[in-house]
Amino acid sequence: MPRAPRVPPRRAACDNARMSFAPLQNDTFLRACLGQATDYTPVWLMRQAGRYLPEYRATREKAGSFMGLATHVDYATEVTLQPLARYPLDAAILFSDILTVPDAMGLGLSFVQGEGPKFARTVRTEDDVARLAVPDMDKLRYVFDAVTSIRRALAGRVPLIGFSGSPWTLACYMAEGGGSSDYRHVKTLMYARPDLMQRVLDINADAVAQYLNAQIDAGAQAVMVFDSWGGVLADGAFQRFSLASTARVLAQLKRTGADGAVVPRIVFTKGGGLWLREMAALDCDVLGLDWTMNLGAARRIVIEAAQANAPENIAARAVAAAPGAENALKEAPRPPKALQGQIDPNVLFAPPEAIRAEVRHVLDSFGRPHTYRAAPGSTHIFNLGHGISQFTPPEHVSHLVDEVHRHSRALRGQAMAARG
Amino acid sequence: MPRAPRVPPRRAACDNARMSFAPLQNDTFLRACLGQATDYTPVWLMRQAGRYLPEYRATREKAGSFMGLATHVDYATEVTLQPLARYPLDAAILFSDILTVPDAMGLGLSFVQGEGPKFARTVRTEDDVARLAVPDMDKLRYVFDAVTSIRRALAGRVPLIGFSGSPWTLACYMAEGGGSSDYRHVKTLMYARPDLMQRVLDINADAVAQYLNAQIDAGAQAVMVFDSWGGVLADGAFQRFSLASTARVLAQLKRTGADGAVVPRIVFTKGGGLWLREMAALDCDVLGLDWTMNLGAARRIVIEAAQANAPENIAARAVAAAPGAENALKEAPRPPKALQGQIDPNVLFAPPEAIRAEVRHVLDSFGRPHTYRAAPGSTHIFNLGHGISQFTPPEHVSHLVDEVHRHSRALRGQAMAARG
Repeated sequence: MPRAPRVPPRRAACDNARMSFAPLQNDTFLRACLGQATDYTPVWLMRQAGRYLPEYRATREKAGSFMGLATHVDYATEVTLQPLARYPLDAAILFSDILTVPDAMGLGLSFVQGEGPKFARTVRTEDDVARLAVPDMDKLRYVFDAVTSIRRALAGRVPLIGFSGSPWTLACYMAEGGGSSDYRHVKTLMYARPDLMQRVLDINADAVAQYLNAQIDAGAQAVMVFDSWGGVLADGAFQRFSLASTARVLAQLKRTGADGAVVPRIVFTKGGGLWLREMAALDCDVLGLDWTMNLGAARRIVIEAAQANAPENIAARAVAAAPGAENALKEAPRPPKALQGQIDPNVLFAPPEAIRAEVRHVLDSFGRPHTYRAAPGSTHIFNLGHGISQFTPPEHVSHLVDEVHRHSRALRGQAMAARG
Repeated sequence: MPRAPRVPPRRAACDNARMSFAPLQNDTFLRACLGQATDYTPVWLMRQAGRYLPEYRATREKAGSFMGLATHVDYATEVTLQPLARYPLDAAILFSDILTVPDAMGLGLSFVQGEGPKFARTVRTEDDVARLAVPDMDKLRYVFDAVTSIRRALAGRVPLIGFSGSPWTLACYMAEGGGSSDYRHVKTLMYARPDLMQRVLDINADAVAQYLNAQIDAGAQAVMVFDSWGGVLADGAFQRFSLASTARVLAQLKRTGADGAVVPRIVFTKGGGLWLREMAALDCDVLGLDWTMNLGAARRIVIEAAQANAPENIAARAVAAAPGAENALKEAPRPPKALQGQIDPNVLFAPPEAIRAEVRHVLDSFGRPHTYRAAPGSTHIFNLGHGISQFTPPEHVSHLVDEVHRHSRALRGQAMAARG
């Protein structure tokens, strides 16, 4: 059973801070998350605050290390806002790492230059699992402080997305001790001792739920679960170990922030296209996709899933999205999941005209946009299918963002004209 | 346009050798490839001759290096047969590497211990592509000599599978210069200069076709195309660059060996489950799957694809499989593709009883086997969804192979009993 969320002592102070958040000026991303029509397709980029930006590299230089950057509220705020100064993105995402939670569990996270994350201790044996527990959220205060600081610094310009790794993805890193090419240790644990694997996933799920709830309390306006390694699982094992533990997270999440606004939930399983129909039953608002899945086919799947679930679901969101309507929302039928993704980040190495053509291809593959006049039929949030490469020329990103906005407006104009 | 296949001068000598091949004693694998009923589900394992076997490590020690092993006919023969001495496998696969073809193109292949394959020269620029050509097949004579030697040494015990990397997968290694986590160089070439990418793929396809045809002439009884990296492509790019170039290979392949026996073709795209319907239109007999795809769902897809193609296809293979019937086969409707795969090799780290349970799960997920009394509805060849890990305990493999044979016989017994 889920544990009761701990209430860290810092809450009271933050509550006051939260009251001063500026009103949101650009709600396009949040509206699209909730299945509502928008004037254009919103866009943000996974890892948009990152090494491809010289200003990011300068701040990281000052911070000394990746964790020095992530744990320093002012630096984390600074780098989160850097891409927004360059590009008219429709959302900001907390600068942090998916491995903060296992670090707070005492596994000893470090980042070795050129090698990625490493844990000092791994979780592979019965004893390792016995020592594991949901960490004191106070150890992650630096994250929640960063959320509040970034939300203030954004001053309502665009919404702020909080995030966490999925229970399964965290378990991968915890068992492997870092990245892996074969997932041998975590899968050995899973196939040899499914009972221990389940215990790890339950602890991770409860920790992730508390972690995301604390981010929501601190000011996050949407939350995303990164199931980066769900796609390495076998059919059957994915449903049992990854999907079920993500569902356990979602079941514990707050539906609204302290300001009463609905906090949309995004779930992204890299390589999860084959399981989209099952993922469409998750209690979330948006499903992330990578570039292997055809967007039009994905849209048909989430629409069918919503229709199978509730034929009368079209007007329900408007009621449910009202402040304080959490209970109504839990019971109400839901619109089709919004879809987020999914251009290959390597497209950004092509010349500007090729980038723009690929952007149009992705937007077109989703199909005619949901417009104000038409019945909802899933909405689209443009993103990459994976984090942006550190080698990306920053000026190429401008072309991508501009073409998303330009072409998606044009598509809506065509759709409106076609309907008279 | 495909180039005319070169006929290497060594052919005549080999023709005589080929005549002396012993008759096949176990044709279960070949029959399953061709959609025919078998008494049990045949099984072989990708990379079955490999580092997990102490006898392999001993031979490699003698050979000095991986390429020393692969280019030495006696050693290659020895290691190919090693797993057959331990396990009752239903096929042997040539011991070689998928990168022999680009090596013969002059790119300078080497294997650095612990780092995988490296090329001295990469293919990234217009000049690089201009220098590229289908290699003289005589440079690959060591491979064809190994095929003949292994076929003789097998003495008809089980059939011998020849193989090649797919044009796209070879292109990945050629552009990246080795393994990659992001495929940045090959995708930059693809997105920035699709014309150059196409040129590389055309050359690779023609080279692969000549290479596989020479393996068929040398004695290979089935051929497999490893599209190991097709799954990293975006929807649309996969069809245009990987699938189309694999189709170009298949269009040039010989249908029968010198002894007149049909040579089944297997195509395996790792991570290609989302594109199975499109792959079902390839001119091949078997599609390989990894563990992410549900086998029962895959079976429904290949059956639907075959039915859409030709409702009257059931009896056609018997006609087409007759010696010299290549032309009839080209025109004739085809049975549903056989499916090969797809257990996660990490299952082999679990205890024997768990391995056996997972084997039964995979066999059961395919559904009731095609039996002699029933109409063909796709056949199954058991395999891993990826090469066996070097850390696998060899005794665990015995349990996997035994359970495939035992449980698949039991399933056939049930199916026959149920039909009276």
